Amino acid sequence: MHTILLLGGGKSATYLIDYLADTAQAKNRKFILADLDLNTAQSKLKNRPNTEAQAIDIEDKKLLADLISAADVVISMLPAFMHPKVAKRALKAGKHFFSASYESEEMRSMRADIEQAGLFFLNECGLDPGIDHMSAMQVIDRAKSRGERILSFKSFCGGLLTPESETNPWKYKFTWNPRNVVLAGQGTSRYIEQGKLKFVPYHQLFKRVDTFLFEGIGEYEGYPNRDSLSYRSVYGLQDIPTMRRGTLRRPGYCQAWDIFVQLGMTEDSYQIQLPQDFTLREFMNTFLPYHPSLTVEEKLNDLFPNLDFPTFEKIQWLGFFGLEQVPQRQGTPAQILQKILEKNWTLEASDRDMIVMQHKFEIASEKGNREVISSLICQGEDSTYTAMAKTVGLPLAIAVDLFLEGEINVKGLHTPVIPEIYDPILAKLAEFDIHFVETEREL
Amino acid sequence: MHTILLLGGGKSATYLIDYLADTAQAKNRKFILADLDLNTAQSKLKNRPNTEAQAIDIEDKKLLADLISAADVVISMLPAFMHPKVAKRALKAGKHFFSASYESEEMRSMRADIEQAGLFFLNECGLDPGIDHMSAMQVIDRAKSRGERILSFKSFCGGLLTPESETNPWKYKFTWNPRNVVLAGQGTSRYIEQGKLKFVPYHQLFKRVDTFLFEGIGEYEGYPNRDSLSYRSVYGLQDIPTMRRGTLRRPGYCQAWDIFVQLGMTEDSYQIQLPQDFTLREFMNTFLPYHPSLTVEEKLNDLFPNLDFPTFEKIQWLGFFGLEQVPQRQGTPAQILQKILEKNWTLEASDRDMIVMQHKFEIASEKGNREVISSLICQGEDSTYTAMAKTVGLPLAIAVDLFLEGEINVKGLHTPVIPEIYDPILAKLAEFDIHFVETEREL
Repeated sequence: MHTILLLGGGKSATYLIDYLADTAQAKNRKFILADLDLNTAQSKLKNRPNTEAQAIDIEDKKLLADLISAADVVISMLPAFMHPKVAKRALKAGKHFFSASYESEEMRSMRADIEQAGLFFLNECGLDPGIDHMSAMQVIDRAKSRGERILSFKSFCGGLLTPESETNPWKYKFTWNPRNVVLAGQGTSRYIEQGKLKFVPYHQLFKRVDTFLFEGIGEYEGYPNRDSLSYRSVYGLQDIPTMRRGTLRRPGYCQAWDIFVQLGMTEDSYQIQLPQDFTLREFMNTFLPYHPSLTVEEKLNDLFPNLDFPTFEKIQWLGFFGLEQVPQRQGTPAQILQKILEKNWTLEASDRDMIVMQHKFEIASEKGNREVISSLICQGEDSTYTAMAKTVGLPLAIAVDLFLEGEINVKGLHTPVIPEIYDPILAKLAEFDIHFVETEREL
Repeated sequence: MHTILLLGGGKSATYLIDYLADTAQAKNRKFILADLDLNTAQSKLKNRPNTEAQAIDIEDKKLLADLISAADVVISMLPAFMHPKVAKRALKAGKHFFSASYESEEMRSMRADIEQAGLFFLNECGLDPGIDHMSAMQVIDRAKSRGERILSFKSFCGGLLTPESETNPWKYKFTWNPRNVVLAGQGTSRYIEQGKLKFVPYHQLFKRVDTFLFEGIGEYEGYPNRDSLSYRSVYGLQDIPTMRRGTLRRPGYCQAWDIFVQLGMTEDSYQIQLPQDFTLREFMNTFLPYHPSLTVEEKLNDLFPNLDFPTFEKIQWLGFFGLEQVPQRQGTPAQILQKILEKNWTLEASDRDMIVMQHKFEIASEKGNREVISSLICQGEDSTYTAMAKTVGLPLAIAVDLFLEGEINVKGLHTPVIPEIYDPILAKLAEFDIHFVETEREL
């Protein structure tokens, strides 16, 4: 009997927990869910057979060590910075380790020891990173096996809303960590296009967007993510002339968000203290130049001559031209902006989230060049069974399941970029309606 | 006989050294110049009577302690981060301390001990900070003594060139630390205008310029410096509606520099590695979007619709449209840009630097409102006797001199914002032709 230990039973673990709890008895496994909050763990497990809830403070080294020793496989859904600590203990105890987070340098430093111990450590097996790697590598490896050459690869993903839930001018609400959304893109992004290195500073990022079409749900636009260059080696595409990864939003979002960026409202590097009874209009004005007679709206218009009505409307809808008071007077501009957005971009009970991901390839073969577009659309069911939780949790659950079944027979430290790992996982994900639709056209 | 110890005899200490060395015998003082390089110290002192050159490694605690114990007054012209270390030793040995650098938090933590020991510690007694404080406070205190109210105070300063030395389209060459010039303004600037708080992100800074006119040498423009708000308490102007400090450049500089800022060429947060034989034109292109047919010049034009010919010419003059190779292929964008600028913005032997500073006040009195403009122009003599060295070194030398003469009779930790300190120093500076010209007009 195998024992699976899952550390952390938060919002994005719903599907992961269900998958492992539902199959525990049939597969003759024990499934332990350890969370800071015992009630959370219990309510998620719902007394299913062969499952056990456990309260744990991750600082309780003794209990952590005991739980890990009693397990065969450890899954960490804790905040990413805690993974190395857990992984080290798993390594020491000779247990396999799984996570949906980026493989850190600290994790890589254990590579030789993991191999020597004959263990399997799999990271980046969620959505992004995770499903993006697996689905991309399937196309890339197939092209390579045919002797074809990949000229261009653009991979974009977004955690968004189903069309019926797009009930505000931004067509956006928070379905994920709001702070990450507010700070998204800070630092410099880099990519390569037609063999030319490209560096994009933060304040140009939301102007440099690509357009992506999804059958049945329409158009999206995407801004580049941080370091697309490093993915060339991850995907074995060292000499690819064009490679860009990015984040998807509905058209118009980036242009409006760029106003906040241009004004400095997303700055997180310094604290401000606003006067009492400060309105949203005054907050906006604080980032605009002084003028003796122009209004906030007129100054915005002067500063951004391209500011069109849809952009204006988005900013207006958030209340920035009105006299409502700011929800927080002390903090960084980004923290105050986040509070304002949280009041407006909150999911309603009836809202459903949606994941969209698209890989756009240009591939050269003897027959000529063609475009291959591979798209995923995954809609959430409700506020618990979200598309985010499904696409993050299922790949991980399936990876653990297939590994224990012996269908993934790999050892060492990995991300899911090899066919021995991604082929069986993608096949199983399709059974849960997580599948890519591929279209091709000649160029 | 008083002994004066000067630590650090670099480029900006020329006038300071001459003042103290020339007067040592007549004033019955001993003047010791301690520098890392004994030759530098000796050549600067030129065997003048009552002077002594000393080699010192600041890490040699024993020698440092010995030199300080043998002195009455310690002047530090070392890099700013070393001041607290020197000041602590001076305090322990019961010696007075002088510097031209900002009063640090560490320095402030010694305040009570300095007072208890009956010592005089004076910081911020150079140009900026230094002359700016003194000249501004003279106007402010005079207005206050008349019961007038200061409505607006803009204080701008620039380390620039004499008009004859402005021999390139930027009308700028490095007369000071090039790295500080390349990184100037990074972070967020804040000021207050007509009672409205204003925050300006780096990428808007060089668009938000003021114009300043200097009699006889023409127009300058200035961009805001980091934190103008904190100066309200320094100058006793807590309730002033408008206050801004900034840096002066010739008109057109800011618009052209802003192109580098907008493109991300001044970013210092990440390393890049450029391919071999990379040209300046390719370097520029790296920060521009890809386009299948547009040239670098055309793409710049598309990205910045306001880019006019004078701006274009400045960028062209630096070689950014040409095929010369980049002078350095590895580093941050800012480091590579700095190397490119250093090749072009180097002072010629015949060039002379120039300091310009202007305070622009709006003052309300019973008779109505008036504008008071107080301007300083100081031209360097040659590459050794620079305006920078003169305006940084003379205030400090004079402060030490007047203190030892008993004409500044103050104890404790200070910056030169009180009349007991600034009045005698400003009077003496005028003898060296460092003086402000004041004009007034009714508003």
